Amino acid sequence: MTREQLFENIQRKESFLCVGLDTDLKKVPQCLVERAKQEEGFDPIFEFNKAIIDATAPYCIAYKPNLAFYEAHGVKGWIAFEKTVKYLNDNYPDQFIIADAKRGDIGNTSKLYARTFFEEMNVDAVTVAPYMGEDSVTPFLGYPGKWVILLALTSNKGSADFQTHLLTPPANEGSEPREEKSLRLFEHVIRRGQEWEKEASPDGKVGSGLMYVVGATQGSAFADIRRLAPHHFLLVPGIGAQGGSLEEVCKYGWNDHCGLIVNSSRAIIYADATEHFAEVAAEKAREVQQQMAAILRSKTH
Amino acid sequence: MTREQLFENIQRKESFLCVGLDTDLKKVPQCLVERAKQEEGFDPIFEFNKAIIDATAPYCIAYKPNLAFYEAHGVKGWIAFEKTVKYLNDNYPDQFIIADAKRGDIGNTSKLYARTFFEEMNVDAVTVAPYMGEDSVTPFLGYPGKWVILLALTSNKGSADFQTHLLTPPANEGSEPREEKSLRLFEHVIRRGQEWEKEASPDGKVGSGLMYVVGATQGSAFADIRRLAPHHFLLVPGIGAQGGSLEEVCKYGWNDHCGLIVNSSRAIIYADATEHFAEVAAEKAREVQQQMAAILRSKTH
Repeated sequence: MTREQLFENIQRKESFLCVGLDTDLKKVPQCLVERAKQEEGFDPIFEFNKAIIDATAPYCIAYKPNLAFYEAHGVKGWIAFEKTVKYLNDNYPDQFIIADAKRGDIGNTSKLYARTFFEEMNVDAVTVAPYMGEDSVTPFLGYPGKWVILLALTSNKGSADFQTHLLTPPANEGSEPREEKSLRLFEHVIRRGQEWEKEASPDGKVGSGLMYVVGATQGSAFADIRRLAPHHFLLVPGIGAQGGSLEEVCKYGWNDHCGLIVNSSRAIIYADATEHFAEVAAEKAREVQQQMAAILRSKTH
Repeated sequence: MTREQLFENIQRKESFLCVGLDTDLKKVPQCLVERAKQEEGFDPIFEFNKAIIDATAPYCIAYKPNLAFYEAHGVKGWIAFEKTVKYLNDNYPDQFIIADAKRGDIGNTSKLYARTFFEEMNVDAVTVAPYMGEDSVTPFLGYPGKWVILLALTSNKGSADFQTHLLTPPANEGSEPREEKSLRLFEHVIRRGQEWEKEASPDGKVGSGLMYVVGATQGSAFADIRRLAPHHFLLVPGIGAQGGSLEEVCKYGWNDHCGLIVNSSRAIIYADATEHFAEVAAEKAREVQQQMAAILRSKTH
């Protein structure tokens, strides 16, 4: 999906909501788990996802299954993940599919991961961890219409352990501009990410193959990030259960293409644990979409 | 597996070799791929691994399947991965099994990954990426006999993009000792990792539940690492195909418990592409083991 298509979907649906499919058999309605015991071939993870997708699709523009929840069930989990992606591609081709995998390995291994997610699974985007540097990230870049979402400033408490510390390049790289030296680790990640994106891009432009993860809990740091990355989309987890504020994110993180994909997982998909779970999830998604519609109107008129 | 059992295995087998099971269907002998086409139920990935394990087990003390190679084949790959781990646990209980997964996510998601790898899969160790900080790593700690292997200074070129840069904690953490300020990112990871390990350990000791990944290509950096982590095992990829030197690694990285698990993947498992691949892999593994035996004898006598 191109940047333009994504922005069109946001405008048409008046939403920049991503629904996180963190599907945990301990939290899905018991009726699904019971049915799986009685009915051979009934896949409770996929059936939960399918019902959530059918109910919430009018209110969101993206889905983000986190791989951890699928791997937790081994082979069965992978089958459910693949079925979910296929279901989305077959029935909702305008939904942006993010594999929240946080992968990253040496070059030839990252290349394999990229091929798996983009060619085999056919997702639109993969989250990637930056710790191993350039050759761990670039194999994911340069697939037309596909996106790398690089971890920059995450929503969790541990984001303060390394990401927000000042980073100084070694002395032998003295040719770097002086200002670089006062940047924090996550800001270096944002800078370097753009250099890598530029090199991998056929027209040398940025913002069409790379996004960054920035937690909703990070408040005014969004303003610092917009100085470094004015044109990029940011994937923003952490509203809802993790406590981030949609208003604050939009205040500091907005750009001329909206520039935000805001994720909510638990607050939507586990809003109800009865057989009415899908309807309640739809209501919750619609509530967020309504807030987003109001923000979109206020920003564009 | 405890630290003592691991060291006993190293002494008994005179080896600290880990064989990397980076099994790629494009590189395994064609005879296996052909047989898979003719014989229903024949799993070429697992059969390759099984033959490699049976041939090389006398010469190594650990196996490290990299998850990327299994995920690349989707559900089939996961089945092969699970069968491989089960085969090792059933037939070679003294082999240390490392899931090279480089995972790391917010606390509740890392908890799921830890449960998957340690309780469901029953591997001995998982590689974990440190970028997301404390709550992304600690859920993997505190499983008795299980290990976190934290990425510190990796073997690839991109390790110089962030890992070797000086990191300065923010000013409001002024209570930290001054010397901290001259440490590089990977050194902070090593320091903080030990603090987390200490907190998670029932006796407050370190070195029995945490290791670090340090690339063989990093040469004398091993001496800096030993100053910060004298007691920890280091998992060392990068000899063989990536060009690191076993002698240099041992010169700078050795401790009183050997303290090194040295991985070789491609140079062993793909040494031969005919039906004799397993015998040739055994020869290559034996060659490395012989070098290791000589080093072990020189260090302990």
